[in-house]
Amino acid sequence: MNFHSMSVEELRNTRNDLQKRYETLCAAGLKLDLTRGKPGADQLDLSAPMLSLPGENYTSPNGTDCRNYGGVSGLPELRELFGELFATGTDRTLALGNASLQVMHDIVVFSLLHGNVDSARPWSAEPIKFLCPVPGYDRHFGITELYGIEMINVPMNPNGPDVEACAALLADDPSIKGMWLVPTYSNPTGYTVTDDVARRLLALDAAPDFRIFWDNAYAVHTLVENAPAPLPILDLAAEAGHPDRVYVFGSTSKITFAGAGVAAFASSKANLDWYVEHISAATIGPDKLNQLRHLQFLVDADGVRAHMARHRDIIAPKFQLVLDILDDRLGDAKIASWTTPEGGYFISLDVVDGTAARTIELAKNAGIALTAAGSAFPYKTDPHDRNIRIAPTFPTTDELRTAMDGVATCALLSATEVLLDSA
Amino acid sequence: MNFHSMSVEELRNTRNDLQKRYETLCAAGLKLDLTRGKPGADQLDLSAPMLSLPGENYTSPNGTDCRNYGGVSGLPELRELFGELFATGTDRTLALGNASLQVMHDIVVFSLLHGNVDSARPWSAEPIKFLCPVPGYDRHFGITELYGIEMINVPMNPNGPDVEACAALLADDPSIKGMWLVPTYSNPTGYTVTDDVARRLLALDAAPDFRIFWDNAYAVHTLVENAPAPLPILDLAAEAGHPDRVYVFGSTSKITFAGAGVAAFASSKANLDWYVEHISAATIGPDKLNQLRHLQFLVDADGVRAHMARHRDIIAPKFQLVLDILDDRLGDAKIASWTTPEGGYFISLDVVDGTAARTIELAKNAGIALTAAGSAFPYKTDPHDRNIRIAPTFPTTDELRTAMDGVATCALLSATEVLLDSA
Repeated sequence: MNFHSMSVEELRNTRNDLQKRYETLCAAGLKLDLTRGKPGADQLDLSAPMLSLPGENYTSPNGTDCRNYGGVSGLPELRELFGELFATGTDRTLALGNASLQVMHDIVVFSLLHGNVDSARPWSAEPIKFLCPVPGYDRHFGITELYGIEMINVPMNPNGPDVEACAALLADDPSIKGMWLVPTYSNPTGYTVTDDVARRLLALDAAPDFRIFWDNAYAVHTLVENAPAPLPILDLAAEAGHPDRVYVFGSTSKITFAGAGVAAFASSKANLDWYVEHISAATIGPDKLNQLRHLQFLVDADGVRAHMARHRDIIAPKFQLVLDILDDRLGDAKIASWTTPEGGYFISLDVVDGTAARTIELAKNAGIALTAAGSAFPYKTDPHDRNIRIAPTFPTTDELRTAMDGVATCALLSATEVLLDSA
Repeated sequence: MNFHSMSVEELRNTRNDLQKRYETLCAAGLKLDLTRGKPGADQLDLSAPMLSLPGENYTSPNGTDCRNYGGVSGLPELRELFGELFATGTDRTLALGNASLQVMHDIVVFSLLHGNVDSARPWSAEPIKFLCPVPGYDRHFGITELYGIEMINVPMNPNGPDVEACAALLADDPSIKGMWLVPTYSNPTGYTVTDDVARRLLALDAAPDFRIFWDNAYAVHTLVENAPAPLPILDLAAEAGHPDRVYVFGSTSKITFAGAGVAAFASSKANLDWYVEHISAATIGPDKLNQLRHLQFLVDADGVRAHMARHRDIIAPKFQLVLDILDDRLGDAKIASWTTPEGGYFISLDVVDGTAARTIELAKNAGIALTAAGSAFPYKTDPHDRNIRIAPTFPTTDELRTAMDGVATCALLSATEVLLDSA
C-alpha cells in the first residue's frame, strides 16, 4: 500500500511491523557487503588462464621483449584493441598502467602545475571548478576535492548530463575547467550519454582549456545482448570545433582482474603529446608483461566482447534479483525509485528525501554494509539525502537476496519514521 | 704514453693514427647501444619462472584474493621482504606499483600542491630548490626540471655527497626542500654513502620540510661477494632528531623484470600516512597479482640475495671487461679516469675536460650510442664537459668489447684534438 496515502495510525502500525522485522534482521547476525563495485570470484575465474601468461612467450607481436624497459605509450597491439573498443583509433589511444584513475589524477596534477595545451597559465594560478553530474563516481570527486577544485553539481539525466544546466554555468564562468563524466552505464545510475547530448556538450561555449573527463569505464560492460556502440567522441569533438576537449579513459579492471588490469587513455594528438611529455618524467613506462598477458588472453576487441558476454551471464541475474526485490518490497509503498540499468556495476536507489543516511545506518547496524551516505556526490553531500548506491556483483546470490531484503526493510522503516515525523 | 707529456708533433702523429683507427671503426657499420641501464636478456631469463606465476595460487599468504580490488599499501609479506632488504622494517615499508620513479614524482607533486607533513605551505607557494649530487641520475633531475624546481649541484664523493657543501647551502637557504640521492652503488659513479656521511647529512640544519630522496635502487645489486648491509636510515634519521627527513625508495625492476617489477617506499609513520592519504585519491591500489608473483618467486630477502648472486655471475665479467679495456687503452695516456664500482649498473668515465660531448658525438657517428652528453647533470649540463656514463649490462660481451674499444678510440682522438688546440 502507498505509504503516502496511509493514515497516521496505519503508518504507525506499519512502522511497528517493520520495526519487528528489522529486529529479526539484526538478530540474524549478518555480515554482508554491498559497498563497492567489485567483481565476484566467479567473474574473476573467467580470466583464470591469464594467471599463467605470458609463459615463455614474452615477446610482443611487434618483437618487443616485454621483460625489459621501454615504451611509455604501451604495446601497439593493445592500443589497437582499445582504440576499437572505445572508438578512438590506435594512434589516439595509449595502453598504460593498472589504474585509469591514476591517469586522471596525473592529468589533473599536470594541469594544476602547468596547465593543459590550451591554458594561458597553470590551473593552480587561480581558483577553478569542475562540473559534476550527480549522482556520480566518488573517486572522481575525491581527486578534485583533494586539490581544492570547487565542484558544482549538475543533474545526470537518463540521456546524460543536463546540457542546459552545463551551458548556463559554463557561459558565465571561465574558471570551470573540467567535467567528470561516465558516459556509458554511468556510475551509479546506469545512464548512457546519447549522441545528441554528447554533441551538444562538445559544442558548448567554455574556457578554451575546459576538458571533459570521459571515463568510459563501462563501455563494454553490458547486461543486455548488445552494448551500444561507443560514440566516436574524439571525432565528434573535432567536428564540434573543440578537438582537444575530451580525455577518454577506460580499463580492463572489470574485464579481467580488478586492480591488475590495463588502463587506456585516448585523446587528440596534441593532448597525447602533452600527456606523454609529462608522464615520461614520472615513469619509464607501463608494465608491458601485463599488457602482453592481456593481449594474449583477450586477443582483440571481439575477444573482449565475447568475454563480457560471459560476465553478463553471471551478473545479469544478480541485477535482476535486486530489481525484483526492490519491486516486490518497495513497489507498492511508493517510497523509492530506482534505475534499471542495461549495463555497468550499479543500481541507483532513491528513497524518501531525508532517509538515505538513516537507511544506511539501519542497514549497517543489521550487518549490511552499504556505500556511505552521500558518496555519489561531491563533498559526500547528497543535497536531498535520498541516494543509495547498490553494488550487486560481489556478493553471492544468496547473500545478495538477504542483503537486499534487509535494505528494503531499512528503507521502508526509515520512510515510516520520516512520514510520521511530518504527519 | 702520457698525452700531456707529448710534443706537438707527437700529439699530431698520435691524432693521425687515431683518426685512421676511427675511420676503420666507422667503416665497420656498427650499431651498438651503451645508453641505458637495462638488464641483458640472459639476466631476464633468471626470472623466467615468474612468467607463469601465480598460476592457480592467486591468494596471498594472509588470505587476500589478489585478483580483486583493495589494499593500497601492498601485500604485507612483500612489505616484510622489502623491509628487511632496505633495513626499514615492515611497518614503515610499502609495496607499490611498477615504478619507484612514479612514487618519487607523486611525492614531489603532493608536496608542490599541498606541502609535506612539516611544510608551512605548499612547496609551489614560492621558488624552491633541490640539492643534486653530481654526477647523478638523469631521471631524478627530470622530475625537478619538469616542475621548475631549481637544482644545485653538489659533488658526489666516494663516501657520499659532499657534506660540507650541503651544510653551507642548507644553512643559508630554507628554500632548499629536497635532495636526490642514490646511496648504494650510485648512478653513475657506483659510490656508496658511508654511515658517517649519512649521519652527518641527517643531522644538518635545514628547513623542517627538507627531504632526502634516498633512492636505494641498487641496494642488493652487488658485483662482489657481499653487498654492504643497508644503513638503517630511518632509525638513523630518528636518532638525529629528524625522523621525517628521509624517503626511501627501491624496486625489483633490476631484480626481476625491468618495468614489470614492484616498487618499495619506506619512511616514517607520519610520512607514510601522508603519502597514503594522497595516493588513495589517485589509485585503488597497486597490482597485487604482480606482487604475489614476486613473493612466490623471490620468497624472502635471502631469496633475493641468492637471486642477485646469479645476476652478479652474469654482469661482473662485463664490468671487468669494460675496466680492462679502459685500463688497456686509456691507462697510459692519462686522459681519463673512471670509477671501479662494486655494484650497481654503471661506470662513470671522466675524459679530458671539454671532450665528453665530442667523444659521444664521434662514437655516435661510428654507430655506438652513449648516453647523451651532460645526462648525469641537472639541466643536462656537465660544467666540465667531461663525464660519460657507461652502461655495460645490456650488450653481449662481444658487442661490449667492440663498443668500448670504439669509445676508447673516440676519447683518445678527442683528447688529442683539444690538446692540440691548446698547444
